[in-house]
Amino acid sequence: MSAIRRARSAAARGPRVAGRPRRPPIAAGARDLLAVGIIGYGYWGPNLARNFNEAPTSTVVAVSDPRPERLAQAQGRYPAIEVYTDYQALLADRRVEAVVIATPLHTHFSLALAALKAGKHVLVEKPLAGSSEQAVRLIETAADLDLVLMVDHTFLYSGAVRKIRALVDSGHLGRLYYYDSVRVNLGMFQHDVSVLWDLAVHDLSIMDHILQEEPRAVAATGVAHFPGQPVNTAYLTCFFDNRLIAHLHVNWLAPVKIRRTLIGGDRQMIVYDDLEPSEKVKVYDKGVTVSTSPGEGLEGAHDLLVSYRAGDVLAPQLGVAEALATVAQHFAECVREGRRPLTDGAAGLRVIRVLEAAERSLNDSGMAVPLG
Amino acid sequence: MSAIRRARSAAARGPRVAGRPRRPPIAAGARDLLAVGIIGYGYWGPNLARNFNEAPTSTVVAVSDPRPERLAQAQGRYPAIEVYTDYQALLADRRVEAVVIATPLHTHFSLALAALKAGKHVLVEKPLAGSSEQAVRLIETAADLDLVLMVDHTFLYSGAVRKIRALVDSGHLGRLYYYDSVRVNLGMFQHDVSVLWDLAVHDLSIMDHILQEEPRAVAATGVAHFPGQPVNTAYLTCFFDNRLIAHLHVNWLAPVKIRRTLIGGDRQMIVYDDLEPSEKVKVYDKGVTVSTSPGEGLEGAHDLLVSYRAGDVLAPQLGVAEALATVAQHFAECVREGRRPLTDGAAGLRVIRVLEAAERSLNDSGMAVPLG
Amino acid sequence: MSAIRRARSAAARGPRVAGRPRRPPIAAGARDLLAVGIIGYGYWGPNLARNFNEAPTSTVVAVSDPRPERLAQAQGRYPAIEVYTDYQALLADRRVEAVVIATPLHTHFSLALAALKAGKHVLVEKPLAGSSEQAVRLIETAADLDLVLMVDHTFLYSGAVRKIRALVDSGHLGRLYYYDSVRVNLGMFQHDVSVLWDLAVHDLSIMDHILQEEPRAVAATGVAHFPGQPVNTAYLTCFFDNRLIAHLHVNWLAPVKIRRTLIGGDRQMIVYDDLEPSEKVKVYDKGVTVSTSPGEGLEGAHDLLVSYRAGDVLAPQLGVAEALATVAQHFAECVREGRRPLTDGAAGLRVIRVLEAAERSLNDSGMAVPLG
Amino acid sequence: MSAIRRARSAAARGPRVAGRPRRPPIAAGARDLLAVGIIGYGYWGPNLARNFNEAPTSTVVAVSDPRPERLAQAQGRYPAIEVYTDYQALLADRRVEAVVIATPLHTHFSLALAALKAGKHVLVEKPLAGSSEQAVRLIETAADLDLVLMVDHTFLYSGAVRKIRALVDSGHLGRLYYYDSVRVNLGMFQHDVSVLWDLAVHDLSIMDHILQEEPRAVAATGVAHFPGQPVNTAYLTCFFDNRLIAHLHVNWLAPVKIRRTLIGGDRQMIVYDDLEPSEKVKVYDKGVTVSTSPGEGLEGAHDLLVSYRAGDVLAPQLGVAEALATVAQHFAECVREGRRPLTDGAAGLRVIRVLEAAERSLNDSGMAVPLG
Repeated sequence: MSAIRRARSAAARGPRVAGRPRRPPIAAGARDLLAVGIIGYGYWGPNLARNFNEAPTSTVVAVSDPRPERLAQAQGRYPAIEVYTDYQALLADRRVEAVVIATPLHTHFSLALAALKAGKHVLVEKPLAGSSEQAVRLIETAADLDLVLMVDHTFLYSGAVRKIRALVDSGHLGRLYYYDSVRVNLGMFQHDVSVLWDLAVHDLSIMDHILQEEPRAVAATGVAHFPGQPVNTAYLTCFFDNRLIAHLHVNWLAPVKIRRTLIGGDRQMIVYDDLEPSEKVKVYDKGVTVSTSPGEGLEGAHDLLVSYRAGDVLAPQLGVAEALATVAQHFAECVREGRRPLTDGAAGLRVIRVLEAAERSLNDSGMAVPLG
Repeated sequence: MSAIRRARSAAARGPRVAGRPRRPPIAAGARDLLAVGIIGYGYWGPNLARNFNEAPTSTVVAVSDPRPERLAQAQGRYPAIEVYTDYQALLADRRVEAVVIATPLHTHFSLALAALKAGKHVLVEKPLAGSSEQAVRLIETAADLDLVLMVDHTFLYSGAVRKIRALVDSGHLGRLYYYDSVRVNLGMFQHDVSVLWDLAVHDLSIMDHILQEEPRAVAATGVAHFPGQPVNTAYLTCFFDNRLIAHLHVNWLAPVKIRRTLIGGDRQMIVYDDLEPSEKVKVYDKGVTVSTSPGEGLEGAHDLLVSYRAGDVLAPQLGVAEALATVAQHFAECVREGRRPLTDGAAGLRVIRVLEAAERSLNDSGMAVPLG
Repeated sequence: MSAIRRARSAAARGPRVAGRPRRPPIAAGARDLLAVGIIGYGYWGPNLARNFNEAPTSTVVAVSDPRPERLAQAQGRYPAIEVYTDYQALLADRRVEAVVIATPLHTHFSLALAALKAGKHVLVEKPLAGSSEQAVRLIETAADLDLVLMVDHTFLYSGAVRKIRALVDSGHLGRLYYYDSVRVNLGMFQHDVSVLWDLAVHDLSIMDHILQEEPRAVAATGVAHFPGQPVNTAYLTCFFDNRLIAHLHVNWLAPVKIRRTLIGGDRQMIVYDDLEPSEKVKVYDKGVTVSTSPGEGLEGAHDLLVSYRAGDVLAPQLGVAEALATVAQHFAECVREGRRPLTDGAAGLRVIRVLEAAERSLNDSGMAVPLG
Repeated sequence: MSAIRRARSAAARGPRVAGRPRRPPIAAGARDLLAVGIIGYGYWGPNLARNFNEAPTSTVVAVSDPRPERLAQAQGRYPAIEVYTDYQALLADRRVEAVVIATPLHTHFSLALAALKAGKHVLVEKPLAGSSEQAVRLIETAADLDLVLMVDHTFLYSGAVRKIRALVDSGHLGRLYYYDSVRVNLGMFQHDVSVLWDLAVHDLSIMDHILQEEPRAVAATGVAHFPGQPVNTAYLTCFFDNRLIAHLHVNWLAPVKIRRTLIGGDRQMIVYDDLEPSEKVKVYDKGVTVSTSPGEGLEGAHDLLVSYRAGDVLAPQLGVAEALATVAQHFAECVREGRRPLTDGAAGLRVIRVLEAAERSLNDSGMAVPLG
């Protein structure tokens, strides 16, 4: 695989001061940047392009999109890149080492497969693919070809989720009781996927990362308010071992934007509000202690003894790096160092398996569907 | 039924100025107050006593509780009342016209039945009874004896819920899409009932009042984190006709207190946050318009056309009367005027029917349970 | 000084079970409770009466108020007390050991002086008196007669202010930069005093307690929006040594209620929001480090080097006792143990001196008025 | 003045599809865009450049900054522009019709004057100049040369401030009582200007726009916590006719960011919180009615009759255009149409006159300084 010497932009060469000719970049100091091609320059593609271009580990060398006006915008912002209306031309571009796929879900599988087969490392927008079968095939292909396959579960790279994971790992929360998230707002109605395959993917990927455990079964309810359109309001319960329960509420029709997760443990509890400007994660040193006494009270042979604990609330300082910047850098490092990404194909598959079970449950009157 | 002349307290007679003997109250101006007996003077009983005593339509004449220290507290606050360790003595007290039952749930039915049979009008704390069978029997008994039977669904008498009901009735919200409520906090763990029969009763009674429609089916999930103890975290979905969906989240183990309901309609939407000190109800003039065009876009034969509307947000002024004061007055008026209460036995029954279905679903892997 | 055996209410004697005569209280177990008389039973008097009656260290034995309907209300709530239309009768009541004065400000001095001269210990509502001259006279009289004189600076007894004081004392905040408070709301318009002598007293007493230092000078601006009425909107700056500054904003005409204080130190900073239900005090481990370099930058001979620090935010657990309950208990303990109250006459005087300086400044175009 | 045909970027020409040569832009459809040169590409310059480049009425053709690395960044983002280390070269560039000055305050006057003398229209970052004398000279020069002089009082072009102005103009607030703003946060410490000349400029420009009246006098207090550095915490009172008062609190050392303005009128009141994501402006239909009765109450010969009104709270929908985009477009339109900008030199001067008075007051113990 050939590498690209960094020649990102005029910025790196110093300003083109009026009247003086440009000089070529000095190659000696250039780093071995990962040369990235972006497929899909719609809603999320520009964010990916910006982050991959600004990361110290990569540069964007090509963009493909069937819509000329989108390519024009990409070209305008990054004059040095090549643009292609046909993604196959991008895959044929020998300079492109790695491909970032930011297209509608129904195209993820075929594009990712083609990219892998073209010898490119692949980062796919979430969700990884449209079915667990497709996800498995991508995972196997990447393994066979010794290529990196990563899914953009962006939130796992945020300071907030990293801090929560660290608090769980260090035992601050104790045994976990529940994980409860609400992700609702007005809009961004999708027409090719339901709200589960859109919003819930975020929460399922965070939940998978925090709980580090797959649910035993999944129950879901929901409704498609508009005939012929996908489900836009859904509720999803995940059952785990040891009485741990998780619940997700996702809704495209809410009058206000809410992004809030409660995580209860027997030692401490967390409120994670992603809309808080500065105190996104709050750790509550409070809880309940329940014991059973053999005493014969008025209320029955065994009295429940409940005592509440309350203590300080801590909002720990969080890393402020843009999550997508960390995604870009992590992907490049995994490629360069041959490491397995935090959000590898398997992580993408685990989320899809829950989504599939949720859909079956939703279509079967909420009956819990076992996993695996 | 004999009436009591008001002789509530020294306050009504003017101060006992030092050195002057008290004079008897002037009977001429006294109103025909409902004489109330309170059974159960634990957590909620004192609030009921206070409100029935301060209401212009009633006075408390007796309290019963098996615990002497509770009776001492009642007597200390209301020197003029009779106190009884045995509720049957209170029911035998001929001055008592109406009985307010504020005891643990498992006693509601027998106490209410006894009270009705003793010829007393009855107000029961929520929930009305422990089963729909019991509720039906109470309703029938009250009807046979021509007595008022009312359940204390307190929130229906608050300014916030009354305003929401008025907004729905006047068509401001249009066709309803969903009703979503969260009622979580740390504590008040009950040991004789689950969180459904405790917290969810509030939301089910509000939902019943706002939607004015019974669900077709109910699905529920949840968990009892402590062995041998009732379910303390639960999620409940109600399915209605016309794609209307409702969902309740109740939890005794949350680190923060949340009391928030979202109500979505196709014209306007409401956020009802009961913890807001002054703007509990906000009406959002926003929503989504979805239409289907026959155009052949890139994405398929039928494109989804979504347009978002956004407008003003209004926090209407709410009545500030204490809800329980209105409960007390409404009950007295129904007795005096022979009216059916807003929260009559049938309202209590409707809530219980949903609770029973939810429990069956919760024990049957979340499978939706049809209602009657 | 005679002591009163506790015979507070029927509650202490057990319930008056129907049909059985009351028995007299058993004197043996009674504690030596401070016998308190309340002068003024208007807005705040009932709160004081309740707290002094429920405190384990005192009991209310008498109330005086010129308005019969207020006395009737007191008598209704506390049947055992004596009520007087004339405060002099209360002062003549030999059972009364200590007097609590909760009347309009213009009566504080004469009532407190009379009470001291009658040999009673005195707690006066804030502010202590209408002038520093009056305050000095009260302090001297109490000292001469060896009586306790205390002013009800209630907030100093709250969990929030106690915690803030502890954080300052322990050096967590480092050197203090500023104290900034906002106390605004709609209403409680007074007509005998300005908003300074009403709302600002709270903040000045807290400030005095936290900073433990008297201002060098005071500047104030403000306005009386209604002719002939007192100033209802005011801004007050206090200048201290070492570049410490304090500022208060008080306003009776604000559409929203705000109770927020910022305290900046060179190590940590505090936000104290008294309206927060559970996290009233937040400690920010953040700040700014400013150094001066001798380097010759483009911007001048001396560059300012500013670096920002940011760390965790901590909301410490606070004591939840009602502040007024602590006031009642502290007063009784000071009387019984001959201790000097935290909010003694001198504390009351310090606040009044700032108020007087503020008024002079306000009437002199905001010109800072030196203290002392 | 020569005009520039739009040739903004490759984007306007369509994408440079691989393998096909670029074609020149079609000149016929190009609009007559204002050709803008930016002087100063530090903190705010890039925002101005972006907005002037994306506005439908202008294009950026040149940038000057003494720092090569800043020019490199500008060039990288806008490959088509000319960059100059010397602003005089930019002023000599005949294509530049208008100049935007985004440099430190102490350079505003000389740069703006030079630009005007070079025949360029001028937009200056706030504040307009370092003294009222300088501002007057700029105003006169622009008038003499018939050039547009505008100051970037950005907030006046925001949806929130426009709505507030409209509410005041339509009489919704009635007679105004007060204007109270708080603008505090940690950081952005300036070393060439005080917090007054930095943060307070925003509030003074908004206040000037809303109240449409110049203060009679200004009083200010404040402190420079760091020796040799400018004032970083300041309080400023503006006195107007008819008992209208305004107050500003600005602080660079606050642990939290606050951007809140209260505006009280005798009909309605406004809370404007610029940090609220969606309900920045709330209109409170509440207030106080004060009348004086001649009755002889206990409290004095004239009783104050106060009644409170409370009604709905409305958060009106606001325009969502970025304020700076509107600034850019307004400036270009004023140039093209020969109109006077909303924030013309006179608006800039009015703000500076208050700042100068505030500084004098601050250095004179808070003594109010008359204006004009």
